[in-house]
Amino acid sequence: MKFFKNLIKTIKDKDPAIHSNLEVLVYPFFKVYIYYKIAHFLYLHKLYFWARFLSEKAKKRTGIEIHPGAVIGKNFFIDHGTGVVIGETTVIGDNVMLYHGVTLGGTGKDKEKRHPTIKDNVTIGAGAIILGNIVVGENAIIGAGSIVLKDVPCNKVVVGVYK
Amino acid sequence: MKFFKNLIKTIKDKDPAIHSNLEVLVYPFFKVYIYYKIAHFLYLHKLYFWARFLSEKAKKRTGIEIHPGAVIGKNFFIDHGTGVVIGETTVIGDNVMLYHGVTLGGTGKDKEKRHPTIKDNVTIGAGAIILGNIVVGENAIIGAGSIVLKDVPCNKVVVGVYK
Amino acid sequence: MKFFKNLIKTIKDKDPAIHSNLEVLVYPFFKVYIYYKIAHFLYLHKLYFWARFLSEKAKKRTGIEIHPGAVIGKNFFIDHGTGVVIGETTVIGDNVMLYHGVTLGGTGKDKEKRHPTIKDNVTIGAGAIILGNIVVGENAIIGAGSIVLKDVPCNKVVVGVYK
Repeated sequence: MKFFKNLIKTIKDKDPAIHSNLEVLVYPFFKVYIYYKIAHFLYLHKLYFWARFLSEKAKKRTGIEIHPGAVIGKNFFIDHGTGVVIGETTVIGDNVMLYHGVTLGGTGKDKEKRHPTIKDNVTIGAGAIILGNIVVGENAIIGAGSIVLKDVPCNKVVVGVYK
Repeated sequence: MKFFKNLIKTIKDKDPAIHSNLEVLVYPFFKVYIYYKIAHFLYLHKLYFWARFLSEKAKKRTGIEIHPGAVIGKNFFIDHGTGVVIGETTVIGDNVMLYHGVTLGGTGKDKEKRHPTIKDNVTIGAGAIILGNIVVGENAIIGAGSIVLKDVPCNKVVVGVYK
Repeated sequence: MKFFKNLIKTIKDKDPAIHSNLEVLVYPFFKVYIYYKIAHFLYLHKLYFWARFLSEKAKKRTGIEIHPGAVIGKNFFIDHGTGVVIGETTVIGDNVMLYHGVTLGGTGKDKEKRHPTIKDNVTIGAGAIILGNIVVGENAIIGAGSIVLKDVPCNKVVVGVYK
């Protein structure tokens, strides 16, 4: 199937530590992304309980929490992944890569769209926290451990607190 | 039972992403708090091994590690929760809310009371690390990713390193 | 067996919260270290898939991800551990202690040796992120939440961003 082919290709392309095709099967992202696809489908059909049930099950198996409401583009990849939290109204473009411990969360101040929008080709380092209904522009790189609380321009490299 | 009623009410009140009562059942905090209550009871009766056995089991299921010795007030809530560590001599007041990745830990310098005291109505953002036998005053807000190494006054908003 | 004796002794020596020998069995580090030893053996014999399969299984059970390729010295200990990621080409000396949430990772810029070398007697606090093929010198202490991107001299105490 094309879905699995693409998923395997994305993982192989993005992780330098991989030794064979088969290894892809043990990647937490491989599992969580399949769960997310089903949960997102249920969410769109307003089966909120079962959607959340699946996303919680995926989190237990992988350490990665993707809310079923999040909208995610092509060639998305999360390396390692433990501690990742992606909120309900997050929007993620194409070719985005996250490392473990990344939060795309809310501040408690916004209504409706409460979580970030991440544009194409963005990379977000380990432990970075991005909060609120803000936009991270295309090709931006968010350094490991950064805290981002306002819009990030395209091509920008962020290190440390950005507010 | 009143215990479950209160627990469900607390979760519903504090999470804007919730769609129904039933969803509460999939919350990691719902599970970990029930485990904690039993583990804390065992700990008070000096059944340390079984207390720790339960808290470790809860951590495996939820990603949240609450030492059975910690003392916790009313309407406590942890959102998401992966990576939370709450140390043995931590004391938490009423209406406290933590996000995922929060550490209430020790510095290795204190004896006996080694972990923080968190007063009523405190909110602690994702990934914040609070270390040592210090006091975080009532209504304080600790921003995501903050590092706190000394007492925080009441009503204070902390962002970044506070030492 | 000497291996288990040493492992139990290391854990007991390093965690002040421990109440009995038996408690060692519930420590995530106890489990992950046994998995790592087997996975590392398989890795050295080029059984990469099974090595990674075991390390992923260990991560699911403990929240601690140690790549089977990492080389680790004596009396190593990880307290709590959720969110720890140790990369493939990491080298760790003797008597090193990590807390939960520590990353020994890559920057994506190096080839071959992509991850840090941690010398003897180093302590690394919760949530610290150490990236790239750099050396953390003997007896150094890396504070909780620090971001380290360049070599750290012996005996140095690092707090905050170090680049």
